[in-house]
Amino acid sequence: MARIVMKFGGTSMAGTERIRRVANIVRRQQDAGHEVAVVVSAMAGETDRLVNFCREANPLFDAAEYDVVVASGEQVTAGLLALTLQALGCRARSWLGWQVPIRTVESHAKARVEGIDSDRLVAAMQSGEIAVLPGFQGLSIDGRVTTMGRGGSDTSAVAVAAAVKADRCDIYTDVDGVYTTDPRIVAKARKLRAVTYEEMLELASVGAKVLQTRSVGLAMKEKVRVQVLSSFIDADAPPADLLPGTLIVSDEEMETLDMERQLVTGIAHDKNEAKVILTRVPDKPGAVANIFTPLADAGINVDMIIQNVGRDKGETDVTFTVPQADLIRTEALLEDRRGDIGFNRIITDSKVAKISVVGVGMKSHAGIAAQMFAALAERTINIQAITTSEIKVSVLIDEDETELAVRILHTAYGLDAEED
Amino acid sequence: MARIVMKFGGTSMAGTERIRRVANIVRRQQDAGHEVAVVVSAMAGETDRLVNFCREANPLFDAAEYDVVVASGEQVTAGLLALTLQALGCRARSWLGWQVPIRTVESHAKARVEGIDSDRLVAAMQSGEIAVLPGFQGLSIDGRVTTMGRGGSDTSAVAVAAAVKADRCDIYTDVDGVYTTDPRIVAKARKLRAVTYEEMLELASVGAKVLQTRSVGLAMKEKVRVQVLSSFIDADAPPADLLPGTLIVSDEEMETLDMERQLVTGIAHDKNEAKVILTRVPDKPGAVANIFTPLADAGINVDMIIQNVGRDKGETDVTFTVPQADLIRTEALLEDRRGDIGFNRIITDSKVAKISVVGVGMKSHAGIAAQMFAALAERTINIQAITTSEIKVSVLIDEDETELAVRILHTAYGLDAEED
Repeated sequence: MARIVMKFGGTSMAGTERIRRVANIVRRQQDAGHEVAVVVSAMAGETDRLVNFCREANPLFDAAEYDVVVASGEQVTAGLLALTLQALGCRARSWLGWQVPIRTVESHAKARVEGIDSDRLVAAMQSGEIAVLPGFQGLSIDGRVTTMGRGGSDTSAVAVAAAVKADRCDIYTDVDGVYTTDPRIVAKARKLRAVTYEEMLELASVGAKVLQTRSVGLAMKEKVRVQVLSSFIDADAPPADLLPGTLIVSDEEMETLDMERQLVTGIAHDKNEAKVILTRVPDKPGAVANIFTPLADAGINVDMIIQNVGRDKGETDVTFTVPQADLIRTEALLEDRRGDIGFNRIITDSKVAKISVVGVGMKSHAGIAAQMFAALAERTINIQAITTSEIKVSVLIDEDETELAVRILHTAYGLDAEED
Repeated sequence: MARIVMKFGGTSMAGTERIRRVANIVRRQQDAGHEVAVVVSAMAGETDRLVNFCREANPLFDAAEYDVVVASGEQVTAGLLALTLQALGCRARSWLGWQVPIRTVESHAKARVEGIDSDRLVAAMQSGEIAVLPGFQGLSIDGRVTTMGRGGSDTSAVAVAAAVKADRCDIYTDVDGVYTTDPRIVAKARKLRAVTYEEMLELASVGAKVLQTRSVGLAMKEKVRVQVLSSFIDADAPPADLLPGTLIVSDEEMETLDMERQLVTGIAHDKNEAKVILTRVPDKPGAVANIFTPLADAGINVDMIIQNVGRDKGETDVTFTVPQADLIRTEALLEDRRGDIGFNRIITDSKVAKISVVGVGMKSHAGIAAQMFAALAERTINIQAITTSEIKVSVLIDEDETELAVRILHTAYGLDAEED
């Protein structure tokens, strides 16, 4: 017998037919003798509908009232799933964010879970009642509704799993696991049986959009074992205990899983970056701080940074990347500070892509980066920037070469699935 | 300066454009120096949508989870109205049922307000902040969401008005007041400047569907002055202080209003009754109790009752009316108890209408009923049953004669508006 938190996304909850399918998956877990809590998203499209209402009502909306409006979507699906489980003969009840309560801190619309009073939840689960919780929502210190930002239901699920000390947090989504790379680009992509938290963080943050990044960070911090799997399994599929998805676990557990590990776990790509070049910046102490401090103050996340050798003595070109959505704002901020920084021109390019090779194996193995550069050079793909971390090497290339680069690297690191 | 609770129904809240119109009406009250709280319904159609979800999820739905789902509709409009008021430059915040809290008792889906902790609400209103409350919803003793039955937002508004000791509770709806009769039937129907609680109860319970009956009962008990008025007034209309709608007040206040009162205030009709005749019921003690006790136990509301003189010695026919929606259930219950009751046949007729003449004036004036019977007899309208109360005379007639009867009586009691 295990204690399991299950989470279902908006596509899985879109309409009463699909909710019935979800209820059947949940019931199977209970029938297998497990204690079960379920965290649900709003029906697909519902949060967008509610956000649009808020925008129409007040373009500069008050985040506290925005939270009141958008939290209703998950309230509806939580109630409906409880009703559907009851129709299947299960005992079930909904627990709204303020009822548990799921205590959150920081600002509305992007609240962070501070603590969950789990005693009543655990007692209910132990009594054989299925606890159904709306994801995404919590309660502020002053007793108001909060929400955790788009995709926050993944984080809710992990936080609930940590609070009730669940054996596993199963995240059901519209994909059936984490792949070595995007299967739409590489037909030979393989589903991974397991990845470590760190690998998942790198894969998620560079564009493998399976889980909200924050939920993975929380799982790592709270040591919650997470499984990603599909809610669109057929009714005769084996029960989820057989772990048909991808497990996300600690380094230590990964060691025990006795899998044949590759040096590289996966290849990710991200087309949402934009490149900025400032030419002829004075090469003196404080110059770089003059560029990046105002961007940081504005909440703009600078990723790759390169300082080229300048053409003239005492000057240099500075290249960096920002999210495409922040490009206009970045340019405006830099123009405002042209005097302080002292650059000549701003050159921007949003037709770039970041390709990343990720794997814990590279911690103990040199040569991964060199192999990457060689593989790309062989196909004359030009590298515009490079960053590395302990378990990742990323390069910036022309956006048109994204798919080619991903395929080359997937093959180069031996990730291709074998032919059937 | 007054303290005013305003309530807007689903038609007034249907979409962000209409909510903006509502916000403007609310702001005008605040601009006039009043302290304001607003109670809102869900967008028109939204509650039906949510109820249908519940039915699809579980035809025998658990009322506690049903409440979680359907209460979300008012949560959305409360948040949106607060946002819209802020966009107009007002200070405003939403107060959900559990936040106030609005404490309710009795069963889910038809909860009754037990008390409202109004201190924080009043403090907010006094500080110049507009309090926006979702109607229809409350909090149960065990901390769960409750709702008050369809149309419950009127009751919420009156309860809030009582709790904050409001000078007036303005109910904005899609009609501009209470009329002497249904204007769709009688073109010369006049809008009433004021009615008493008792008159409004009789008018509402017999089919003038302007306010939920329960809200009028609560207003009478708590002595809340209610005004019914239209939310579809144009932007240049005089402010609502000029009382353009219909006031609903106590007998005592009515005396002070110094209006030229008619003996009869209004004519109501109701086509939702059905007639049941049980033939040849034994004329002995306890026979009538055998009929009506099981109906009462089943929550079926019996209205008019007549005991005819039977054809044979020791037997009698019993005629009564029930809501059409309960007719099938009534027949089934009576058939079940055929042995106990000892009747011969059940004859039912749902093609009947109840026509009622209502007015506090008739308390002190005889002859109102006789005048009614004479006016109907003159046009050969057959009366099938009669009931009377202190301020009402009702007759049951053939449904086809409804409109004719209403017109005849409206003229007979001098209620027709004068020609322009």
